[in-house]
Amino acid sequence: MAQSPATLAAYSSYEFMRVTSPAPHVAHVEINRAPKLNAFSQAVWLEFGRVFRQISLDADLRAVVLSGAGDRAFTAGLDLGAASASLGGGGGGGGGDGGEVLDPARKAKALRAHIEEFQGCISEMERCEKPVICVLHGISLGLAIDISCCADIRIAASNARMAVKEVDIGLAADIGTLARLPKIVGSTSWVKDVCLTARDFSAHEALQAGFVSHVLQDKAGAVQKAVEIAVLLAEKSPVAVQGTKELLNYGRENSTAATLRYTSVWNSVALQTADVPAALQGTMAKKRPSFAKL
Amino acid sequence: MAQSPATLAAYSSYEFMRVTSPAPHVAHVEINRAPKLNAFSQAVWLEFGRVFRQISLDADLRAVVLSGAGDRAFTAGLDLGAASASLGGGGGGGGGDGGEVLDPARKAKALRAHIEEFQGCISEMERCEKPVICVLHGISLGLAIDISCCADIRIAASNARMAVKEVDIGLAADIGTLARLPKIVGSTSWVKDVCLTARDFSAHEALQAGFVSHVLQDKAGAVQKAVEIAVLLAEKSPVAVQGTKELLNYGRENSTAATLRYTSVWNSVALQTADVPAALQGTMAKKRPSFAKL
Amino acid sequence: MAQSPATLAAYSSYEFMRVTSPAPHVAHVEINRAPKLNAFSQAVWLEFGRVFRQISLDADLRAVVLSGAGDRAFTAGLDLGAASASLGGGGGGGGGDGGEVLDPARKAKALRAHIEEFQGCISEMERCEKPVICVLHGISLGLAIDISCCADIRIAASNARMAVKEVDIGLAADIGTLARLPKIVGSTSWVKDVCLTARDFSAHEALQAGFVSHVLQDKAGAVQKAVEIAVLLAEKSPVAVQGTKELLNYGRENSTAATLRYTSVWNSVALQTADVPAALQGTMAKKRPSFAKL
Amino acid sequence: MAQSPATLAAYSSYEFMRVTSPAPHVAHVEINRAPKLNAFSQAVWLEFGRVFRQISLDADLRAVVLSGAGDRAFTAGLDLGAASASLGGGGGGGGGDGGEVLDPARKAKALRAHIEEFQGCISEMERCEKPVICVLHGISLGLAIDISCCADIRIAASNARMAVKEVDIGLAADIGTLARLPKIVGSTSWVKDVCLTARDFSAHEALQAGFVSHVLQDKAGAVQKAVEIAVLLAEKSPVAVQGTKELLNYGRENSTAATLRYTSVWNSVALQTADVPAALQGTMAKKRPSFAKL
Amino acid sequence: MAQSPATLAAYSSYEFMRVTSPAPHVAHVEINRAPKLNAFSQAVWLEFGRVFRQISLDADLRAVVLSGAGDRAFTAGLDLGAASASLGGGGGGGGGDGGEVLDPARKAKALRAHIEEFQGCISEMERCEKPVICVLHGISLGLAIDISCCADIRIAASNARMAVKEVDIGLAADIGTLARLPKIVGSTSWVKDVCLTARDFSAHEALQAGFVSHVLQDKAGAVQKAVEIAVLLAEKSPVAVQGTKELLNYGRENSTAATLRYTSVWNSVALQTADVPAALQGTMAKKRPSFAKL
Amino acid sequence: MAQSPATLAAYSSYEFMRVTSPAPHVAHVEINRAPKLNAFSQAVWLEFGRVFRQISLDADLRAVVLSGAGDRAFTAGLDLGAASASLGGGGGGGGGDGGEVLDPARKAKALRAHIEEFQGCISEMERCEKPVICVLHGISLGLAIDISCCADIRIAASNARMAVKEVDIGLAADIGTLARLPKIVGSTSWVKDVCLTARDFSAHEALQAGFVSHVLQDKAGAVQKAVEIAVLLAEKSPVAVQGTKELLNYGRENSTAATLRYTSVWNSVALQTADVPAALQGTMAKKRPSFAKL
Repeated sequence: MAQSPATLAAYSSYEFMRVTSPAPHVAHVEINRAPKLNAFSQAVWLEFGRVFRQISLDADLRAVVLSGAGDRAFTAGLDLGAASASLGGGGGGGGGDGGEVLDPARKAKALRAHIEEFQGCISEMERCEKPVICVLHGISLGLAIDISCCADIRIAASNARMAVKEVDIGLAADIGTLARLPKIVGSTSWVKDVCLTARDFSAHEALQAGFVSHVLQDKAGAVQKAVEIAVLLAEKSPVAVQGTKELLNYGRENSTAATLRYTSVWNSVALQTADVPAALQGTMAKKRPSFAKL
Repeated sequence: MAQSPATLAAYSSYEFMRVTSPAPHVAHVEINRAPKLNAFSQAVWLEFGRVFRQISLDADLRAVVLSGAGDRAFTAGLDLGAASASLGGGGGGGGGDGGEVLDPARKAKALRAHIEEFQGCISEMERCEKPVICVLHGISLGLAIDISCCADIRIAASNARMAVKEVDIGLAADIGTLARLPKIVGSTSWVKDVCLTARDFSAHEALQAGFVSHVLQDKAGAVQKAVEIAVLLAEKSPVAVQGTKELLNYGRENSTAATLRYTSVWNSVALQTADVPAALQGTMAKKRPSFAKL
Repeated sequence: MAQSPATLAAYSSYEFMRVTSPAPHVAHVEINRAPKLNAFSQAVWLEFGRVFRQISLDADLRAVVLSGAGDRAFTAGLDLGAASASLGGGGGGGGGDGGEVLDPARKAKALRAHIEEFQGCISEMERCEKPVICVLHGISLGLAIDISCCADIRIAASNARMAVKEVDIGLAADIGTLARLPKIVGSTSWVKDVCLTARDFSAHEALQAGFVSHVLQDKAGAVQKAVEIAVLLAEKSPVAVQGTKELLNYGRENSTAATLRYTSVWNSVALQTADVPAALQGTMAKKRPSFAKL
Repeated sequence: MAQSPATLAAYSSYEFMRVTSPAPHVAHVEINRAPKLNAFSQAVWLEFGRVFRQISLDADLRAVVLSGAGDRAFTAGLDLGAASASLGGGGGGGGGDGGEVLDPARKAKALRAHIEEFQGCISEMERCEKPVICVLHGISLGLAIDISCCADIRIAASNARMAVKEVDIGLAADIGTLARLPKIVGSTSWVKDVCLTARDFSAHEALQAGFVSHVLQDKAGAVQKAVEIAVLLAEKSPVAVQGTKELLNYGRENSTAATLRYTSVWNSVALQTADVPAALQGTMAKKRPSFAKL
Repeated sequence: MAQSPATLAAYSSYEFMRVTSPAPHVAHVEINRAPKLNAFSQAVWLEFGRVFRQISLDADLRAVVLSGAGDRAFTAGLDLGAASASLGGGGGGGGGDGGEVLDPARKAKALRAHIEEFQGCISEMERCEKPVICVLHGISLGLAIDISCCADIRIAASNARMAVKEVDIGLAADIGTLARLPKIVGSTSWVKDVCLTARDFSAHEALQAGFVSHVLQDKAGAVQKAVEIAVLLAEKSPVAVQGTKELLNYGRENSTAATLRYTSVWNSVALQTADVPAALQGTMAKKRPSFAKL
Repeated sequence: MAQSPATLAAYSSYEFMRVTSPAPHVAHVEINRAPKLNAFSQAVWLEFGRVFRQISLDADLRAVVLSGAGDRAFTAGLDLGAASASLGGGGGGGGGDGGEVLDPARKAKALRAHIEEFQGCISEMERCEKPVICVLHGISLGLAIDISCCADIRIAASNARMAVKEVDIGLAADIGTLARLPKIVGSTSWVKDVCLTARDFSAHEALQAGFVSHVLQDKAGAVQKAVEIAVLLAEKSPVAVQGTKELLNYGRENSTAATLRYTSVWNSVALQTADVPAALQGTMAKKRPSFAKL
């Protein structure tokens, strides 16, 4: 694994996303801008959104691994050079695209549109119907945390250097960390500590806090672990796996009563799948069943 | 303790639920189908719902311990033989109860009704106004997790073998695990890991994840610990204990502001109980107060 | 630090709150009733609410540390003597303020008003727009937990003796613990254990459960750690820090989608601050930027 | 129609509910206690809940009409004689079932259980999966409004004398009017006027306010109109009709975004029904299609 | 009635609020700044909040009528002269209170605080536990609508000239109209029409839309009608009336299921009032019962 | 007006959407498929979504009118021929796009994706930041209602023949009517009547029910009225108008408290616009102000 399988044909047009398939039904997406420590300009995040929309619809794929390309960084976060160019100069912000001076309300509209486009692209990974396992390794700052919060399972290499860095450049993180982190780890005291101080935290601390669920020695080991989990998921009924992802995501945002009701409606058709008898027969016959595309 | 007190008289009619009283005001419910590893057919879950409705209304009882009968299993989960018989054969589902062929929408109605009845029975344990301490021991698969998610406090024996097993038979767990587990443990990464992979996890891992709050050496020790906690609760004001359970359950599902308001309304009458002066006098006199039934 | 700086002039009128400034832009609030183990009468909680309202509006302050005065207690909780005097005698409750006998519905109105005033004062610390770091030390019972749940970051001294004690005096905690605790730690099993049993838990257990995020040797060390964090926060952009607090609090209570939307509206003006270019320049020039008041 | 068809066989065991079938797939439920102006004792509301549970599951029925028996009243509401007997005497409330004196917190538990049982029985009509058309005629006071708020469509005879009467006997309506009325009519000013003053309002005023959607001359005319609508509904696809009821009820309680999502999941199986091609063919062939039971 | 009773003693200190008592237990609040068409400066809205807080706690009062002083206006809305003075000059906003130039994020904090204080004062009328009947007469623009949306029952004189006027001065109404109006009338098409166009609407149109529930010939007639309703409410059980207001307000904001639950908890103590037997006896004896203060 | 202005240049590429500009800053969108009674195939709804996304971002436009092309129909709804072709044959549904037979769970995934794409395109009109005035005229069935529910203001020609027609072809309306209609008109009894029976309702009935807010003689008059309102809106501050739309939409879906908070954050930047002083000066100088693009 990780011995460089070729880019998947259907995904060859991306400039900043490299998509390979280390195993049947498994995709490995790499943020592919190693010379810039995989930092995100607008072009990168637009591709990021696009690749996860494509994977979500791709009936050949059942599980996804995400990592950064190269050994140094998962991602160093926002490409500050590109960002300050696009936001323009002027009094602490911007949003104008021409020569005219905009009043703060008009700048606000442009900024809102900008943030929502950016949020929307990153959220595509959460909306992707296939489970995503994210490998945090090396430099994993700022946007790295926003992105990884959209994954289903997080794994860290022991060299991962993580921080919710945004406060240090004068802003509150707005691409998802503050919305999602309190929902995906247990200790609010820890969440506020790392978000308010912008301090680094290690893979070990992330494991203690429940932010990641496995820590491996190095990036190679972490990617290998991620692919193993992905392979395990890809061998199971995609109706069951994708339904489980959907219902867990729903349950995180809704009351128990609402989730139970939604679950019964969801399973009123999901249980009509051919995968249930196939899985039962496979269990009894002790051989791995095969499941149709989804 | 646990040296086999007799079944409580008022609960002698159950076939699959054995209810004893190891201490005053304490009930011990055992899933009582050891030859089948305490697996659940429809008859079992109907009794399960019924016994917790009865306990909720039973003014003599103040705390409940739940375990499986026998040493091998808390429960092996759904009785697959019984389940596939009741769901009938055919193309991946069913729901028809006669000879006619139902279209998928009509099958869906039957499946929805089936799931909701099942969910409703298991949820009775959560709705029970008395606190419930659940002991996970031995085989604790699938439905075992759905059930234990409805308890207030979870304790594991070190031999507990737990798994959210449903994905392996082709379905998303629909009796409560996916609705409740993200709300009762902190790490979503861990929740998705165990729910998507269906892998086993140990008592120790469950403790780390916060799923259980105590691990004991073996089933006997775990039951003893559970009974000790139950005794402790049964000696306190039932107005205070049952109010605390209600408000914590409410707080889990509602905003902080809504919960504070609900709390003030709730306590506007609860504070008028005779238990407050009795408890205060008991504290000052350093003797255990006694409280009226509730 | 903690070498007794003088009370801040603007805060010299409080009887039970001592407010000093151990560092620029940092306030240290001490519950200042050591002879009574910092127990809360109504006069104390009214001042508590007032001091945090004042701090929230004080543009000179950017971070707050809260502790108890003296070495013995953070707070022993409600001053039971004062409370039973104010609630009057009679059959388990009260609420009347005169000689007449009130029916339970009329008593309930008075109790509701009483609880809501009390809740409102304690909640002022949560509403305070500056981050609050709470140091739990020594006796930290009952109301101590309600209060600390309103802080952003919790730190414990290893001698802290904590308990959700209310059940032992016949009531369900109603000043915030039951509303907030399930939202700020991960394990519901642990939350219910400590809330239903009213048992003591140690600093170490609190760290394991995620209730606190740091444990220090003794009160002095814990206060020093708290002040260090406060200093770190006070040196950063107050637009960024206060925005981060606001968005995390919002995210805890709202869905991910709602929080993302709220974030984009919030940052549509926050990004227009002069702090962003100042922070960026500071980063590049490797010197600490200075930020205007907020 | 309404010329006294015989009681439906499967519903012959009810004492206070008369169920006839004026047309295929249509049930007419009459509150059958005319000598008491159809007032509700506990026995009546228990039967009311039971009959609607039975109808909900009865695959032969597709639409329901509800009225009172006799010409004088839909229902005069709660049977006050029976109610005060069951609540016992004493200081404004009760809840005790024996000789002992309960403190207010213990009485509250009994009252809560009592209200919830009562609410639960009336709510069964709302939960009934078949549409219910309620005819308000003659005396329609107090509980009459709680009940009719659970119907899908309300029709009034011009002699209907309606009032939210509860305030006049010293209590806030607790069986559903205050929960549902603000959601089913548009003008809060009107809702508060009739709920706070307990004044009578006429069929015409109810039509203006949107509480009813048709007014007919007399009871016979109103029942006939209700049966005509019921017949119209009973001739349509039950998958479509019951799905429409479910989605409208869901939409009333949930955000637009949540309802759109729920709708897509619901229809992902409902659209697989044989009723869609049957309805389309019927439309093209201009003959009424027939649909399988549901 | 309305023939100028003297100001209630306890309310004599207000400058802009005149409070008289046209009948026992009834207060009539007049916005008392006729020379300025009852326009609101900050001093006026601070008093407005204060007077309704006082009334809410005043056990002698059971119902409230609100009108403007004089014949020309209920209120002309915000006092634009005072407002532009307080917001200062500069680029379309402000918030600074000194000479320094604030960046948009810092101005935003001041504006947010300003809006929230203003909203909070107006919302006190909605929070007031006694029912409020608002009389709209003459000029009733802008803030007039925000205020009247907080009343329980709205009555208009036929000369009322109403408009959601804010758009015409370049802003979206922010003191409550946009938050409340869609919840208190039925037709969103009408709401958006009047809010987006800022056009005038008449008393008759307001009645058609359900915004008011009664229209009277002139101000005197409208005030008389309001007082008659207030008298009617003041003669009823205050436990029942105030409970009905609370539960209707709760029901407007929460799901049906949540409201039913809240209702059962609320009434579990409210039903223990002495007012229920008193009201029942009064009904049987056909004489008006008297109720204790609340 | 309506005398056929030319298509706006930037919108000339649409096949089924004709976009003209009857007045400055005003767009008139016509569903342009008159020979098919403006029925919607997938190509039409994709364009519908696209045109409203474009308008939302178009800083030259401030208000939009929507109508059907030609005199016969606003729209006859879904193009059933195209729909049944795309859904394929077989047992009441489909979703497969190839030769293979899909099980119901796999068909469900395709159907879900199909419904969500369709919903998403229609919802673009609701998301459009500029106010939309919809003219219902002639045949306005099924999808016509889903679409018009997304408009801000609805106007009907007296010849409009409206119906929520979906039940008659065997399905529950899933493109928005059932999600939105209960939120935009007051009477649930009326909503359920028209949705369950699929009966026609007239312009007059729609006005009574609050579904439309104006009825005009014929299509030309209705379009003229719509354009007049649009012109009125286009002359006002776009910051104020678009903010008002946003806050009303937010208020419809959220609690009053949440909306007040959101409003204060929104206006904390909106009030910094140059439009406020411009509007105030315009008011004082009695000349129409001009506002910058938004």
